[in-house]
Amino acid sequence: MSLSTVPHLTTALTGPLQHIESHLLDHQAEIEHWFRSQWLATPAPFYGSVDLRNAGFKLAPVDTNLFPAGFNNLNEAFHPLCVQAIQSVIERVCPRVARIVLVPENHTRNRFYLESVATLAGLIARAGFEVRIGSLLPDLASPQTITLDSGRSLLLEPLQRRGNRVCLDNFDPCLVLLNNDLSGGRPALLEGLEQRVLPPLALGWSNRLKSGHFTQYRAIAEAFANLVEIDPWLIDPIFRNCGEIDFMQREGEECLAHHTSLMLNSLRDKYREYGIDHDPFVVIKADAGTYGMGVMTVTDADQLHALNRKQRTRMSSAKEGMAVSHVILQEGVYSFETWGPQEAVAEPVVYLIDHFVVGGFYRVHKGRGPNENLNAPGMHFEPLAFADSCNLPDASRAPDAEPNRFYAYGVIARLALLAAAREAAAVAETHLDPTEGG
Amino acid sequence: MSLSTVPHLTTALTGPLQHIESHLLDHQAEIEHWFRSQWLATPAPFYGSVDLRNAGFKLAPVDTNLFPAGFNNLNEAFHPLCVQAIQSVIERVCPRVARIVLVPENHTRNRFYLESVATLAGLIARAGFEVRIGSLLPDLASPQTITLDSGRSLLLEPLQRRGNRVCLDNFDPCLVLLNNDLSGGRPALLEGLEQRVLPPLALGWSNRLKSGHFTQYRAIAEAFANLVEIDPWLIDPIFRNCGEIDFMQREGEECLAHHTSLMLNSLRDKYREYGIDHDPFVVIKADAGTYGMGVMTVTDADQLHALNRKQRTRMSSAKEGMAVSHVILQEGVYSFETWGPQEAVAEPVVYLIDHFVVGGFYRVHKGRGPNENLNAPGMHFEPLAFADSCNLPDASRAPDAEPNRFYAYGVIARLALLAAAREAAAVAETHLDPTEGG
Repeated sequence: MSLSTVPHLTTALTGPLQHIESHLLDHQAEIEHWFRSQWLATPAPFYGSVDLRNAGFKLAPVDTNLFPAGFNNLNEAFHPLCVQAIQSVIERVCPRVARIVLVPENHTRNRFYLESVATLAGLIARAGFEVRIGSLLPDLASPQTITLDSGRSLLLEPLQRRGNRVCLDNFDPCLVLLNNDLSGGRPALLEGLEQRVLPPLALGWSNRLKSGHFTQYRAIAEAFANLVEIDPWLIDPIFRNCGEIDFMQREGEECLAHHTSLMLNSLRDKYREYGIDHDPFVVIKADAGTYGMGVMTVTDADQLHALNRKQRTRMSSAKEGMAVSHVILQEGVYSFETWGPQEAVAEPVVYLIDHFVVGGFYRVHKGRGPNENLNAPGMHFEPLAFADSCNLPDASRAPDAEPNRFYAYGVIARLALLAAAREAAAVAETHLDPTEGG
Repeated sequence: MSLSTVPHLTTALTGPLQHIESHLLDHQAEIEHWFRSQWLATPAPFYGSVDLRNAGFKLAPVDTNLFPAGFNNLNEAFHPLCVQAIQSVIERVCPRVARIVLVPENHTRNRFYLESVATLAGLIARAGFEVRIGSLLPDLASPQTITLDSGRSLLLEPLQRRGNRVCLDNFDPCLVLLNNDLSGGRPALLEGLEQRVLPPLALGWSNRLKSGHFTQYRAIAEAFANLVEIDPWLIDPIFRNCGEIDFMQREGEECLAHHTSLMLNSLRDKYREYGIDHDPFVVIKADAGTYGMGVMTVTDADQLHALNRKQRTRMSSAKEGMAVSHVILQEGVYSFETWGPQEAVAEPVVYLIDHFVVGGFYRVHKGRGPNENLNAPGMHFEPLAFADSCNLPDASRAPDAEPNRFYAYGVIARLALLAAAREAAAVAETHLDPTEGG
């Protein structure tokens, strides 16, 4: 394969990104020192993945997943890094743990997801823990072995409640590791456990809001931009939210159109300021939830009045049938990275375990434009594993050399993870989640 | 290069090693759980390297270096692992540190060593610290730049004392990282500092004894062998020490010969028990010190009476002119790993940062036999970087498959590191080293 292993940044506007990258390189020791003090104040979640969009002039997170899938898409060369990070986080959080039950999503037909679960379980086993898969599937009466396309097999066992503990047959775990984002609500089976649950239930999408995340992120991006002496907008997507929306009943539509229009205006100003010759756009999506359901791209507020029935229906449903009632308006960030002769759009996804960046991959999609979401339901993207790690910045090379571009991804992803850590801290204070004790 | 990237284990006696490796694999989760509890009780030193010898029937450490050189010999593919481990250990031990002064050995003519210092400093910088080299060279009046064979350059600056701190021009470090084993004694410049010194001065060879290390190791090997259900001898080299020795004056010679004879007898018993058709041998070396000076291999106690003047002189001097007065008698462990068509002897060296195994390399030496030391003064070995990491054991493959052999190296090396950690704890209790405060 003669293809480069790293997508090409197609925009002519590399100036501003080199601007971001060179500021990150110049301040590398300060950045890492700053992160260390941040993690001391607010420990990182167990793990996470961050979707980034790289517009050349701007590099920003657009989604932060605290129950990451896609571990099967990581470069196997960096599995040792994952194993070491798993050892590190468990040592920090619950060093006496020996047995872990991994609670996955109920997507038994999503073979890609099951490959991710198998990879994650394998990494945990290699890190030196007994790990088994405890399924929440309501109709799973007995253990079921699923053979995966990779040839591996995955044993799903029904998770059982016994008093204040969950267990499997002949397996009493010390730790419940959630890989289920709880879009369908908090399962009663997992409430009030004496075992530690990580990440805590309160970080599921049944409690979390994207606007909450990006509110935290905004403050972090400001402080960080101040540290590295850049405009915070270069790393922060503007967002707004408005009240209740009912797309079917057209309630709240005026409000949405109004905010969209305001946001597009301020983006036009920003684009002008930086000499960017593209049309700004706004992404409208569910404030709670994931998997790219109910996502819409708008370049003009009038488009919101002209939605047809199909579009309205699509915006009204999210994962597991939850109705969208709150939406977030987020500045659209162009993805100007392309890969291969067909110039397929590529979007980086960065993986973190504890606060360590352990790898990532690009979602590569031939059929999409640079202003389209690459993580929509049923969408098939090609994963392209990161060729390098994100922790070897090289000041002796050009700011946009590969290790430095990966370092920049890792820095921005950590800012998003820090926002999630602050969400977790805020949630722990208000909910007093019993699983979050010492 | 069509050579295998991993040395070949030439012995026909692979049975017993597969025995060790399969027991390690079978108990992997218990082993890692056990290590976690050990590191909680006794934190690992900042870093270390462990020389192993692999006889096929036996896999044992023969030397543990708490001021490792040779970082330049590691596989660059695992630099991310080193960076992550450095971040992890500093976070655990002294999270507020921003500036580090690295204090190297005074070997300015050893270009290999200087390459190691440059690599280590580079890893620390990538981990997000400001790092500079503070030299103890008495005749270094001003900063000196040395250009290395790799094309890199290294800036040595004279380490200065100011009150209770050491510093360089315009650089006030928070942490003094020793890469100098203090064979020449504890430098007054570093005594009583208010800055943290890691590893502490008390772990230099001016305080440490190999017999102290192997006394700790023996107890650890016994507990560990019990856990994984093997004979502790398979991972533990027998040793003995006797009183004062003066090779020139032939004082203590009888005692040495006596202990050598006793040790050879018990080794013959062990070899018979395991059906090993080789002659056992004993290695006699300085109890304090390193660099393979004053090392002698003996297969018969009578050889000690027949030493000529040259051999006596060699045994009487160690690094930096320290006279050898205490020696340790250690069971010789055959190295039955060979590499390449010439079947050069290969000896693994495992690198650890904190308690994480971050890589290693083989010392490959064409001119040596399987019962000879490969780390003697002026000796030129070829480094062969480990092709795999040591933390990806694979139970689905044969016990002697490469990832599993590397895992076994990592386990035995960590046992030796744990012995060093217990030495450090013992030293901290008796010396109350002021640099070892919280």
